[in-house]
Amino acid sequence: MQNKIATFLANELSQGESLGVVFGLSGGIDSAVIAALCGKFLKDKSLALIMPDSSITPKIDTEDAMKLVDKLGLEYKLIDISFVQKEYSKYLVPNTLAVGNLAARIRANILYYYANTKTQLVLGSSDKSEFLMGYFTKYGDGAADLLPLVSLYKTQVRQFAKFLEVPESITSKKSSPNLWPGHIAEMELGVSYEEIDIILHCIVDKNLTIWETVSQTGIDSSVVDKIYKMYKKNEHKRIIPKACII
Amino acid sequence: MQNKIATFLANELSQGESLGVVFGLSGGIDSAVIAALCGKFLKDKSLALIMPDSSITPKIDTEDAMKLVDKLGLEYKLIDISFVQKEYSKYLVPNTLAVGNLAARIRANILYYYANTKTQLVLGSSDKSEFLMGYFTKYGDGAADLLPLVSLYKTQVRQFAKFLEVPESITSKKSSPNLWPGHIAEMELGVSYEEIDIILHCIVDKNLTIWETVSQTGIDSSVVDKIYKMYKKNEHKRIIPKACII
Repeated sequence: MQNKIATFLANELSQGESLGVVFGLSGGIDSAVIAALCGKFLKDKSLALIMPDSSITPKIDTEDAMKLVDKLGLEYKLIDISFVQKEYSKYLVPNTLAVGNLAARIRANILYYYANTKTQLVLGSSDKSEFLMGYFTKYGDGAADLLPLVSLYKTQVRQFAKFLEVPESITSKKSSPNLWPGHIAEMELGVSYEEIDIILHCIVDKNLTIWETVSQTGIDSSVVDKIYKMYKKNEHKRIIPKACII
Repeated sequence: MQNKIATFLANELSQGESLGVVFGLSGGIDSAVIAALCGKFLKDKSLALIMPDSSITPKIDTEDAMKLVDKLGLEYKLIDISFVQKEYSKYLVPNTLAVGNLAARIRANILYYYANTKTQLVLGSSDKSEFLMGYFTKYGDGAADLLPLVSLYKTQVRQFAKFLEVPESITSKKSSPNLWPGHIAEMELGVSYEEIDIILHCIVDKNLTIWETVSQTGIDSSVVDKIYKMYKKNEHKRIIPKACII
């Protein structure tokens, strides 16, 4: 698996004019896997951006991110986005969801600023579970040039992280987009990733109906229905903007 | 043509949960056409955001945008992005291209902030010429939910604008993304839109080779080659992020 991703990244870099890659490192598991892969295969061509919102991001996440770049020997920058966030808020009506998504979009802006300046490709760390559910911010953490992990479900990324020796402090952490204080993915979704991945595998990879999925997995129909609806409703996040055909 | 776009917008709004549309209004021709269409078909469901960077955007553009919303009776907000831009610059190394693209991305952030807050769809104003050449900022002005004008070449948008009675002060203006002072599209591209549209029509719609295009149009081969290379090189702006298939 790691070799396929290494080949993918090497091919993409050799085909274009880009000199390296840049990615956001949150202290969560997905971006830690990206970092581990970059440390192994693109060490001198990688830049990790650690971009906490100091008013929201748990300190442990930033510490974990810092320890990881140190361990891997990766070049990095640490930028607190809370000041930029505050500047926007002077012109905008408060709204928790919108502010959370804005944080993800500010990070995308900074990643692309570096990518523009250093002629780098932006690596997104979306996994297959998040991507299919649309559990990411459109044009925020969804904004990337390459998605190395998007063929792997969250539960597969967790196994892959252990294989890549990502520190236990990161692998044992509850998944969280941290768009607001106390934001925990499985709590917001109301379903565990073990169940989510089984459901998505049935619906998307095996093309089963909701009822076939329920009968094959024994998972409650309301849960299957919820994930199916997210998958359908958020299709717009997985396509380019819809064109009016004239 | 206007009826097809009106139907497209009405269908998209009726299918989802969105209550209306929001778009950026620059004072240029493409977004003025969007505004004119919204004024005609979605008057009570539209919000125009006028987002000059007061240090760069020509005053006449903001004045033209203000006059247009007034004429059309559209709801609008005026937000100077220069302060947010300055806040970012405290953390970033100066770079003209990257700063220009950042401005477009700040505008996208604000559009999506409103879209999140008011449950609206973001209309992008890309035309077919810009879209095919990739002459836009990835995840900046390229960030949208719907692209009503993307089937129309720039020269067609210019005709459409006259039909829609967009004021002459806007239709007669040189096209400009205004990402830096004195930024004029045809000057940066080195080719007129009349030639660009003919070339793109041959290459994309008629699937002709560079040499067939040269011989059919009589346009200099270096010009055709330049547009062809932009079309190919910027393909990444017209697709979703590239996935590593495992």
